[in-house]
Amino acid sequence: MEGVDYLADERKKTEFDVEEMKIVWAGSRHTFEVSDRMAKLVANDPVFRKDDRVMLARKDLFKNTLRKATYAWKRINELRLSEEEASKLRSFVDEPAFTDLHWGMFVPAIKGQGTDEQQKKWLPLAYKMQIIGCYAQTELGHGSNVQGLETTATFDPQTDEFVIHSPTLTSSKWWPGGLGKVSTHGVVYARLILDGQEHGIHGFIVQLRSLEDHRPLPGITVADIGMKFGSGAYNTMDNGLLRFDHVRIPRDQMLMRVSQVTRDGKIVQSDVPRQLVYGTMVYVRQTIVQDASIALSRAVCIATRYSAVRRQFGSSNGGPETQVIDYKTQQSRLFPLLASAYAFRFVGEWLKWLYTDVTQRLQANDFSTLPEAHACTAGLKSLTTSVTADGIEESRKLCGGHGYLASSGLPELFAVYVPACTYEGDNTVLMLQVARFLMKTVSQLGSGKPPVGTISYMGRIEQLMQCRCAVKKAGDWLNPNAVLEAFEARAARMSVSCAQKLSKFSNPEEGFAELSADLVEAAVAHCQLIVVSKFFEKLQQDIPGKGVKRQLEVLCGVYSLHLLHKHQGDFLATSYITPKQASLANDQLRELYSQVRPNAIALVDAFNYTDHYLGSILGCYDGNVYPKLYEAAWRDPLNDSVIPDGYEQYIRPLLKQQLRVAKL
Amino acid sequence: MEGVDYLADERKKTEFDVEEMKIVWAGSRHTFEVSDRMAKLVANDPVFRKDDRVMLARKDLFKNTLRKATYAWKRINELRLSEEEASKLRSFVDEPAFTDLHWGMFVPAIKGQGTDEQQKKWLPLAYKMQIIGCYAQTELGHGSNVQGLETTATFDPQTDEFVIHSPTLTSSKWWPGGLGKVSTHGVVYARLILDGQEHGIHGFIVQLRSLEDHRPLPGITVADIGMKFGSGAYNTMDNGLLRFDHVRIPRDQMLMRVSQVTRDGKIVQSDVPRQLVYGTMVYVRQTIVQDASIALSRAVCIATRYSAVRRQFGSSNGGPETQVIDYKTQQSRLFPLLASAYAFRFVGEWLKWLYTDVTQRLQANDFSTLPEAHACTAGLKSLTTSVTADGIEESRKLCGGHGYLASSGLPELFAVYVPACTYEGDNTVLMLQVARFLMKTVSQLGSGKPPVGTISYMGRIEQLMQCRCAVKKAGDWLNPNAVLEAFEARAARMSVSCAQKLSKFSNPEEGFAELSADLVEAAVAHCQLIVVSKFFEKLQQDIPGKGVKRQLEVLCGVYSLHLLHKHQGDFLATSYITPKQASLANDQLRELYSQVRPNAIALVDAFNYTDHYLGSILGCYDGNVYPKLYEAAWRDPLNDSVIPDGYEQYIRPLLKQQLRVAKL
Repeated sequence: MEGVDYLADERKKTEFDVEEMKIVWAGSRHTFEVSDRMAKLVANDPVFRKDDRVMLARKDLFKNTLRKATYAWKRINELRLSEEEASKLRSFVDEPAFTDLHWGMFVPAIKGQGTDEQQKKWLPLAYKMQIIGCYAQTELGHGSNVQGLETTATFDPQTDEFVIHSPTLTSSKWWPGGLGKVSTHGVVYARLILDGQEHGIHGFIVQLRSLEDHRPLPGITVADIGMKFGSGAYNTMDNGLLRFDHVRIPRDQMLMRVSQVTRDGKIVQSDVPRQLVYGTMVYVRQTIVQDASIALSRAVCIATRYSAVRRQFGSSNGGPETQVIDYKTQQSRLFPLLASAYAFRFVGEWLKWLYTDVTQRLQANDFSTLPEAHACTAGLKSLTTSVTADGIEESRKLCGGHGYLASSGLPELFAVYVPACTYEGDNTVLMLQVARFLMKTVSQLGSGKPPVGTISYMGRIEQLMQCRCAVKKAGDWLNPNAVLEAFEARAARMSVSCAQKLSKFSNPEEGFAELSADLVEAAVAHCQLIVVSKFFEKLQQDIPGKGVKRQLEVLCGVYSLHLLHKHQGDFLATSYITPKQASLANDQLRELYSQVRPNAIALVDAFNYTDHYLGSILGCYDGNVYPKLYEAAWRDPLNDSVIPDGYEQYIRPLLKQQLRVAKL
Repeated sequence: MEGVDYLADERKKTEFDVEEMKIVWAGSRHTFEVSDRMAKLVANDPVFRKDDRVMLARKDLFKNTLRKATYAWKRINELRLSEEEASKLRSFVDEPAFTDLHWGMFVPAIKGQGTDEQQKKWLPLAYKMQIIGCYAQTELGHGSNVQGLETTATFDPQTDEFVIHSPTLTSSKWWPGGLGKVSTHGVVYARLILDGQEHGIHGFIVQLRSLEDHRPLPGITVADIGMKFGSGAYNTMDNGLLRFDHVRIPRDQMLMRVSQVTRDGKIVQSDVPRQLVYGTMVYVRQTIVQDASIALSRAVCIATRYSAVRRQFGSSNGGPETQVIDYKTQQSRLFPLLASAYAFRFVGEWLKWLYTDVTQRLQANDFSTLPEAHACTAGLKSLTTSVTADGIEESRKLCGGHGYLASSGLPELFAVYVPACTYEGDNTVLMLQVARFLMKTVSQLGSGKPPVGTISYMGRIEQLMQCRCAVKKAGDWLNPNAVLEAFEARAARMSVSCAQKLSKFSNPEEGFAELSADLVEAAVAHCQLIVVSKFFEKLQQDIPGKGVKRQLEVLCGVYSLHLLHKHQGDFLATSYITPKQASLANDQLRELYSQVRPNAIALVDAFNYTDHYLGSILGCYDGNVYPKLYEAAWRDPLNDSVIPDGYEQYIRPLLKQQLRVAKL
């Protein structure tokens, strides 16, 4: 049955130009070409094989990752790949490794927080990987709250050194990727102590292991923190623990771009704005939003293809059963996720622009848009990662029983993705930051300081508090203005309602704590509005290709109306819409599903994922699922022998009623 | 730091009698005592150790499960345990194994579908485990739709045998637990063919492996289907694949309690009612609801204890940070899950009674309550497993980063639990069955056939369509009648609304398909009403112990009002409540969280789980989390050596810039 294309009929139904959609998804023709080339390069190289990953015990798994990461670096050098190409190649290798932290956290920390001199000293070593670095911030007892870190860095003026120390068990560094077994150096965050006085948390470059024999240096205890969620997944990474017993480093290894410690142990602030750190946050979080759209689109691609292959029920007169994708229950769960993948792709693209904009302003000492940019990236990180984590698991369930097989790829995708909801800001904590920004914005309305950017709708607060939805028939919900106003009115009213409740508390902090669950809901409403409005903005652009824009309009409708239906309580409670209008939105949504249906396979083909990258038998491009599942089963180590190991010791004595004498 | 009880202060806050609550949770003093004894027996036996499970490669993992399952059987015999005790012991071993299917599916299938003669022949062998059986129904291409199975059983009148055959690849049996490596026999479901005519799906007892050397019998191909979700988890089970190449079995191995095939190849129906099969379904599904409350309570226990241990932010003047459990955002996510665990416990208890009632009626040839009982168990299976699966993952997220560690126990609990959403009826398919029952009930209203049992509220349809919520202040939502009426009105109105929309379709089946997503929502509303009303019924009972009933009332309030808030769109859209009343419900909910707070630890202590069974460092009874996490990390195989395997081949050449000559 090799070579049969079970999805060929589906592809014939397509009503738009898939090749052009691929460009839209990639962001540009250039990006598409680089991605396509790198994806194929990885897919065709047997070293990067990953289908055996879930079967490996921890040590073998980790060793294999060392091999892949090192080999990838070798190839990057041999092929003289550009930074863009190298980064794509690493992402298509699709396996968390120490290199992620080296390039993604260690190098940027030195670039962002190191002085020119420090950069000149450390970056060339890092660029050639003559040293390998990690980012050691979180501790066993301290995650989200950086100010709670306990590790100390005490200046010793006698020797011109800092003494790095772990005073308690809970101060042990815990979680940093690449730390456990590989990194030779780390950027370590610690409480600066000068002459007995605390001066807040700062970063220090600390060598951890000998460059000769890789042994931990004196005073340093380092190890892996153990197994994490799932098989394969993040277990390829050596997240580590680290303890310091009075480890001494030269003074010039404190990262001193913002604050300096002088030879005589005084702290001095440079004229570099501290707000720079927000710029870095905006950068990191926008990459997380990009990654969310990728992870979600992978899951959706698998579930969509298999939903077209799989048939259940509905056979009449012994004919074939109905394709699962034709069931409305399937569509109503799958298509909103498909639409969300596209929505997150576009809002991620916009965030990339926002980061450039923020950076340029920072360089011109313009901090005016920073609070809004910070709130909006924090909120979008939270929203998109939460939806993606849930969406991967929903996609798995949409594949029925076979989604539970490791060979479906979905269990590992879920296990490797979910930490995104926790790292770089816990999603609930981030939404509370957005809520704080919203409350501040409401309190300043009318103060003459008009809200900017994604919050500018608040400038029309009076109109938004009073207007009523004008929808009369289902089709009216296709009007972008109707949808936008609905999301704006909902978000504005939820914020104002929270602000009113808050004002009844004499202690605002107490009120904020008491109402925090409601504040999170208001923040979610605000963030969903951003995604909806950026999707509409995307549709304002010139988008070439037969039927491409039309399909995106349909997806935009699905995205916004499924949210409207799911959260209809918000829209009804704020009295912006009537129950009848809510019902019309749902009718229109159902109609849109029918328009997605014939294009569903092409819409996931547009992601241009290789079978290697997708890593899923259920999602394979040709849809020839069952023979592949059958073959894969035989590769499980348990099938190495017909009679399982343990038969003689356990099964046979059991069957033969000889347990009394058996040694168990 | 051994022996410190970090939760002692929490336990002092308790306002009710925990020992009495343990009895309520267990169901009776007797059940509590049996459970407690069996849990301790397992916890104190080193053979049942499970903390190393996630680190084992598949073969070692499986062999270890063979050992545990066999050893458990040995202990059951040595201690002459009762059936109840044995079943508890197996559940506390907490590791999926072939014995689950042998006792849970193979034996019941023979009991339920075998004739007296067949039972006399096979059951004694099974009871002594001289044969080990599995339940081979699902196929590679066929899951939910039993009628789509392809395996054939063709009667050969010449030899008085059935010929069992797998005609296609998709007809391969796929998924049956215990099949892959252990079972000697299976109940195999196949399409009966007599003289070229099909006669539907029937069960057959087929020997699969030699009882002498365990080799598959001629014509039989059998193997494990490969790795599943997660590490440890369900990978201890040998879910199998099975193909038949014209395998012959004697005629008397067809299970013939309901239909017989005679010597001359004719099919004859016995007078045993076919509805019996529904009785079995009710039985199996009520056990799944019981299991849901157990799985959810384990996750909630872990998250609650760790939320009291963990501190983040909120430190003032260098004092300790705030316990995470004191944050309203944490409470608003955690306490509804805690309340759901109790709610599912009580509805499960009631389902057990329902099964007894249905069985007695079936024996008296009374089938009148069967459709209602079937719909309600199907719906509750779907509702409780969906909430539990999501709830475990939510509990994991509530533990922050450390919830991602395997030693938190939550990743494995999730991975081992989620198939419950798919097996024994996919949750969406089941909700559609409930919806079908609801639509039938609505269509028969006024026909003189009053709705019974959980659907009897539909008998008051006119009142429920017209009434309006009378709540005026937050406290009014504590009135059980107010809450019940709200849930009844919502469920009734959603059903009626669907029925009205359906009536506009000329083809009812087409309408049902088109509106299926809305029908599922109506079915969910109906099922939530059942859980709420059974919780209220529980509270009508005499419940001894200081403060016990009071606490349960608070939890019942949390359960119902969090649903009301979450689904406020339904309540508002059906115009039963006003936005103001919805907001009051939310205010009351917040107030109830404060009442749960001081009792939270005691409420999870009442589950009486041993640290062994819980299998979570974060959830350990004494709360002494951090030293235990630190110790556990060192047990990872990756920490066997300071320098990782792979350093010489990969890391060193990388650091030393010798990749060009390295062999990778």
